[in-house]
This record gives sequence, structure tokens and C-alpha cells, in this order.
Amino acid sequence: MAGKAELHRQPFTVYGQSGSGNCHKVTFVANLLSIPFTWTEIDSTTGQTRTPAFLAINPAGQVPCVVLADGRVLSQSNAIMLYLAEGSRLIPEDRFDRAQMYQWLFWEQYSHEPTIAVRRARKVFGKVKEEDIDPKLMESGTRALELMQKHLAGAEGGYFVGATLTLADIALVAYTRLAHEGGFDLVKYPAVLAWVKRVCGDLGVEYTGPV
Amino acid sequence: MAGKAELHRQPFTVYGQSGSGNCHKVTFVANLLSIPFTWTEIDSTTGQTRTPAFLAINPAGQVPCVVLADGRVLSQSNAIMLYLAEGSRLIPEDRFDRAQMYQWLFWEQYSHEPTIAVRRARKVFGKVKEEDIDPKLMESGTRALELMQKHLAGAEGGYFVGATLTLADIALVAYTRLAHEGGFDLVKYPAVLAWVKRVCGDLGVEYTGPV
Repeated sequence: MAGKAELHRQPFTVYGQSGSGNCHKVTFVANLLSIPFTWTEIDSTTGQTRTPAFLAINPAGQVPCVVLADGRVLSQSNAIMLYLAEGSRLIPEDRFDRAQMYQWLFWEQYSHEPTIAVRRARKVFGKVKEEDIDPKLMESGTRALELMQKHLAGAEGGYFVGATLTLADIALVAYTRLAHEGGFDLVKYPAVLAWVKRVCGDLGVEYTGPV
Repeated sequence: MAGKAELHRQPFTVYGQSGSGNCHKVTFVANLLSIPFTWTEIDSTTGQTRTPAFLAINPAGQVPCVVLADGRVLSQSNAIMLYLAEGSRLIPEDRFDRAQMYQWLFWEQYSHEPTIAVRRARKVFGKVKEEDIDPKLMESGTRALELMQKHLAGAEGGYFVGATLTLADIALVAYTRLAHEGGFDLVKYPAVLAWVKRVCGDLGVEYTGPV
């Protein structure tokens, strides 16, 4: 099914924030699939996602969002990836494999991003002192990493779904590769660390955390 | 593309909690598409999602999850819906419409469920007094309802994507129809209220909130 769709080839504009893993997802997929795009920097930390001009583009006031060549707008990082990658090798052709990919995409947004990315944002963008960060973020982020370790330790293919890179890996690596900036130590999760290095290699991006 | 897949017809088992909107999504789709299923009640409020037996089925310790006829397991309510509904009228055939459906599915899990459903859970399951509930939940839930009102007021088709019921509506109605149990007043959002009644009618379920 996924293989029958035509690849998206038309240039688009991303409204994104350079330090945001959610925004990186869009560029990772576009670069992998050689889809041309223009980047417009929007800094949520200085209120640029709440201006009337930006809210006219994305009423949800979030980055990333993309404007297609015909002017239509799409938001939500994982939805943008699904749109861009349709018909590519990044979406499994098998129905159940594809469903597992969806499962991890939703898990990422519900259980991973709100813990690991949010703790990193407190430190990196908020400049909040370690002792002033809600301790629940470390607990829930640790639970997320433990679940990833358990899954990847039993994943013979070396990826979240099957034996090749899919959108599940791209969504999950976006903030996992930056987890050390949020105070998480990937060395404690060897299967996760090996997977991060593998996926960063696939994406051609650097992993700068401890090994 | 979506129209080319075959409908899922094999019976499955849902592990779910009767009062959970996330779990209702699975039964709504199965009933609409006449897919037979067996329900196994799992009460997260008494720790039944954290038992070794349940964690062996779903390591994430969440309901709903489904076990297919061949024993394979799938979790995450919206991923389950996408699996069951593939090839049906509930997933738009147009690529951009389908992407917009994905967008709302992810928005629901990131910005709607953690506010509207969580505030309801505090009151209904947690029996937390109104004054002891984090005021941020009312603020963020109100923002979510305002965004839905704005979108639906401009949606000529009467649904979130296009002019027919899609998974976006089913995901969003699951907790919106119960929002009054969390202290939200849908009467303030007339386009949302009209849409809730329309979708509940399509699903054959009752809306018991104020009109």
C-alpha cells in the first residue's frame, strides 16, 4: 500500500526552531528523501509562535509547521513526516508493521517528548537549575528510556520496527540523541545508545553525547 | 491509497477500561466497521495495568491494547484505530486530507487528551476536589476547546477533515463528549457542541452533557 503512493517532490517551507527535535524530524525526512525545502526560523522562546502573523499560519501556535507549494498548511511533526514520506521506504509496506510504526509515533508524542524533550527544554532554553526542575520529569523520562531499552534489546533488526529505518526511529531519535542535554545518561541503556548511533549514522547527523 | 487495502475482518480482543475515552475509540471503530471483538476489563485505577501478566502483554502498561487473532499485540488508541480502519471510509483517500487527519490525531494525544481527559480523570476516578486540581488543566483544556471551536466554525463539511466522519472526529469526540465530567462547559463552544452531537449520532452513542 505505502509503496503505491508517489513520492512528494515539490519544495515546501518549514517554519521551525533550530534547537527543536520536533522540527529536526521534518528536515531529517526531507534530506533522506531529497525533497527541497526552505527553512524559516521561528523562536518560540521569544514569543514568535504566538504572533498574529504566525497564528494565521498555524492556529495551534506550534512549530514545526509546513506550507506546501500550493499554500496548504500542515502541522504536527509526526503528521508532516507521514505526509512527506508516503510512498517511501520509511513507511513499512506490511500492514501490521505500519501499525507498529504508528504505535511508536503516538507513544513518542505522549510518553517520550513530554518527558525527555521537556526536561531538556527546561535546562537548555529555560536555563532552569537542576534542583528546580520537577522531579517527575526525570522519573517519567527514565521510564521511557527503560521501555526503549527493553524493546531494542529484543529487536533483532536493530530498529524499532523490523530491520530497516522507519519514521518510528526518526521520531524517537529526534530527542533521544539530545537526551544528555536534559540530564539523561544513555550509557545506562546500551541498546538505546547503539540504536542512537546507528540511526544518527543513517541520517548523517552527529551524536554528541557520552558513549 | 486507503481504499486499496482490505478491511480487517478477524475478531480481536481489547484490553480496556470501561470509563476510558481512549478505549472507547477502539469499540467505536470496531462497531462502525462491524469487526467482532471481545472486551477484557482492565482497571488502571486499581493497578491492573501494572501487573506482571498485563505488562507481559503491553510493556508500556497502558490501555487500550488489542490482541489480534494471531496473537500479535498493538497498543496506542490512535494506532489501533488506524490499523482497524485501513481500507475503510474512516480514512480519507486524498493524501492531504489523510495528512490532516494524522495532524488532528497527534494534536489530540498531545494537546487535548493530557488536558481534558486528565482533568476529567482527576475528578471522576481520582475524586479530587475542584480546588485541588492543577489550574493549568482548565487553562490548557480551554485553549484546546477554543482551537476546536475556531476550526469547526470554519469547517463547512461539519467534520474535522472534509464532509464526512473520519478517525480525527472519533479520536477527538472520545473525551470531548465527556468534557463536562471534567468541568468544561461545551455550551460556550457552539460549533463544538453541534459537532459532538453530530458525531455521537454517527456513532450511535449518547451525549449526556448540557445542551
